[in-house]
Amino acid sequence: MTHATLRHLLSLADLSASELDRLLQRAQSLRERALGAPLPEAPLAGKTVVNLFFEPSTRTRSSFELAAKRLGATVLNFDMANSSTRKGETLADTLYTLEAMGADVFVVRHGTDGVVAQLASICAPRSRLVNAGDGRSHHPTQGLLDMLTIRQHKGQDFSTLSVALIGDIRHSRVARSDLRALRLLNTGEIRIAAPESLLPESSVQEGCRLCTSADEAVEGADVVMTLRLQRERMEEGLVTSLEAYFRDWGITPERLALAKPDAIVMHPGPMNRGVEIADAVADGPQSVIREQVSNGVAVRMAVLEALA
Amino acid sequence: MTHATLRHLLSLADLSASELDRLLQRAQSLRERALGAPLPEAPLAGKTVVNLFFEPSTRTRSSFELAAKRLGATVLNFDMANSSTRKGETLADTLYTLEAMGADVFVVRHGTDGVVAQLASICAPRSRLVNAGDGRSHHPTQGLLDMLTIRQHKGQDFSTLSVALIGDIRHSRVARSDLRALRLLNTGEIRIAAPESLLPESSVQEGCRLCTSADEAVEGADVVMTLRLQRERMEEGLVTSLEAYFRDWGITPERLALAKPDAIVMHPGPMNRGVEIADAVADGPQSVIREQVSNGVAVRMAVLEALA
Amino acid sequence: MTHATLRHLLSLADLSASELDRLLQRAQSLRERALGAPLPEAPLAGKTVVNLFFEPSTRTRSSFELAAKRLGATVLNFDMANSSTRKGETLADTLYTLEAMGADVFVVRHGTDGVVAQLASICAPRSRLVNAGDGRSHHPTQGLLDMLTIRQHKGQDFSTLSVALIGDIRHSRVARSDLRALRLLNTGEIRIAAPESLLPESSVQEGCRLCTSADEAVEGADVVMTLRLQRERMEEGLVTSLEAYFRDWGITPERLALAKPDAIVMHPGPMNRGVEIADAVADGPQSVIREQVSNGVAVRMAVLEALA
Repeated sequence: MTHATLRHLLSLADLSASELDRLLQRAQSLRERALGAPLPEAPLAGKTVVNLFFEPSTRTRSSFELAAKRLGATVLNFDMANSSTRKGETLADTLYTLEAMGADVFVVRHGTDGVVAQLASICAPRSRLVNAGDGRSHHPTQGLLDMLTIRQHKGQDFSTLSVALIGDIRHSRVARSDLRALRLLNTGEIRIAAPESLLPESSVQEGCRLCTSADEAVEGADVVMTLRLQRERMEEGLVTSLEAYFRDWGITPERLALAKPDAIVMHPGPMNRGVEIADAVADGPQSVIREQVSNGVAVRMAVLEALA
Repeated sequence: MTHATLRHLLSLADLSASELDRLLQRAQSLRERALGAPLPEAPLAGKTVVNLFFEPSTRTRSSFELAAKRLGATVLNFDMANSSTRKGETLADTLYTLEAMGADVFVVRHGTDGVVAQLASICAPRSRLVNAGDGRSHHPTQGLLDMLTIRQHKGQDFSTLSVALIGDIRHSRVARSDLRALRLLNTGEIRIAAPESLLPESSVQEGCRLCTSADEAVEGADVVMTLRLQRERMEEGLVTSLEAYFRDWGITPERLALAKPDAIVMHPGPMNRGVEIADAVADGPQSVIREQVSNGVAVRMAVLEALA
Repeated sequence: MTHATLRHLLSLADLSASELDRLLQRAQSLRERALGAPLPEAPLAGKTVVNLFFEPSTRTRSSFELAAKRLGATVLNFDMANSSTRKGETLADTLYTLEAMGADVFVVRHGTDGVVAQLASICAPRSRLVNAGDGRSHHPTQGLLDMLTIRQHKGQDFSTLSVALIGDIRHSRVARSDLRALRLLNTGEIRIAAPESLLPESSVQEGCRLCTSADEAVEGADVVMTLRLQRERMEEGLVTSLEAYFRDWGITPERLALAKPDAIVMHPGPMNRGVEIADAVADGPQSVIREQVSNGVAVRMAVLEALA
């Protein structure tokens, strides 16, 4: 059940609808076992997976680490954000060095758009790269885990669904990967809503219904996805106050009551409670936020297995 | 040989005398194998142990890591003290996220009293927590390893022993856990001695003989436990000089000569040589300081095994 | 195929020519398997290898970590450069503590000359130490991997070879270890070339031909080894400008054309491209820089296996 055709996972634009579907099916079939003991069949036995993170991350790095270990791989972690180890070496030379030590799969996060794709263009033929987030562009495994979560609650046919994305879409690689995946899965209606300063470029808005308020976006929706608001947006003057942001764009119980009664609420984490989401929603019965995290391990196992 | 009744280990106050005894017995039986190869029976195979340290630690974190690996667990380390990874996420959400990834046991150190117990009160039913040190309150595995070390030298009956604790008891979670364990084991006489500025609150002194000098505490003792003096105590004005502290409260060969000839000397590490302990004592024949470290791995194996 | 006589590897001066040869032979025989799955025979199963790095390192630490894991060892990493964990504990006590936890092999890097040998002089009889670089003195595994790389290209008889070392020899432990190994292997001619401010003490120059220019050193050479120039050398006034350094001492295609047509180019990494080496040379057909990295894993496996 491996994808002979998939070499790297840099963006969900790399995947056809049927490849996306196959990955989600495989992740679903791994789902139960993803949180337990390493798989006895150890599909990545003898493979070395390197987590190369140039931005701090607990969540995504651990998720990949657990996914790789449960597949039987050897894992090396490089926390380049908290380290002084690079000593002026180019990123390409860091990659070449790790390749020369026998690394097979590189899970890379970098703050700059396009860096992961650039590394993929120069890596050795046998190397495999997974984009664990670059700049504002791509976070494909987050897109996959979000789709898996929606499927588990709403079924495989997305054509009748209304999905609302609310918040700082402009700076979000999660939003861009989710939008790509939602289009690929032929989602009925994709709604986006954000303060004007946090709206993305028009190409990202393509095929979406732009809502002028959070209430409009949530009304009658099947899925409400909210995004992290980085506190830096305040300092940059893109948001006037966290209180005003919460009032206008935060997902509160009152606002959520506008959605379908069985709507689910999603957040990629880490959450700023009381900013983009109310406690009562984050911890409420419609929240699937922890399921997203669990699905993340299964999706990353499916991706690593498909590449290795 | 697992303790069905033990869910978390937050404090030695959680343990009955018989539970404490059972853990020490199990640690003793693991003692020889604790420093070698992973146990072939791998009692924690398939379990994921997360070391979640919000204060820097080499010693305790490594000890838990080795204990978990020798039991066959998968181990994830989070060095939250040296990292910028949390991004404003609440501690509870960090816990929930790791739970959602399938973590089974959390080994938590935090600078604030009560934080570990608070996490235990909100964690999932299947999660297990071990307090690896919180604030000044608890360090239960240190208490256990110290008791194991005393037992190995002085036997199981503590009712005839004089145990002296000397030094910065006020700021020490080690001292609080040791005092709890010594009382639970019905120790004959517990003596405490410290400069007045470093004496603990009266509840901690309960059942102890308060000595006005180190000499008085050491005289005729079977066990001399000294504690680390953090250099911050100088800046805080609690200690006038390290030289004076060493003269008045440090364990020197001359002072140790006042104890029973077969008295043992203990220190939880890391040591400030020449401050709370003289080199000749730390490295002398009565020192069991390195045995404490070795016992730490065995005790942590017993605890992890009992919880998992 | 273990060396019963080798206790530590602190310096290549510890090795006889025949011991050096045996290690290189063993590394060569491990070479193919060094970059793949852990060895099924797991020669270090049940052993604990501790990477104790007091200077930042990605490359050497990972290489040792992979070598140890491929031999089946349990590995603990201590990044003491990026950590605040030591709390005033002496280096000796850190060692004793890790020994008391059952560590078997210590891989140590430290910025100060002689520290690793000092630790070796006080460690427990069962402990094994590998010097992963100390001060400017020794980096024995780098010396071994460089010799293995030369052998693979030039055969086992070094007596007919001209080997040129160019660059900051004065501050380089790599150069000192390479020079020791080259002498031990009876190299035909060893040439050294550097700006006067970067020449080493005379004992290091012994048996070498001191060249007054890079061109003179390269001319007709079989092996051209260039060394990293740390940017600190500028601030220290030892180098006037990086441009001038590159012009006078950098390995450019023009300069390399003076060497034998089949000369190989080596660099210990991490490279400062455009300072000590031109891109076209680093990535050109004569460069064996990535092979050095691959050989590093094999050499470290051979060393760990011989010691453990």
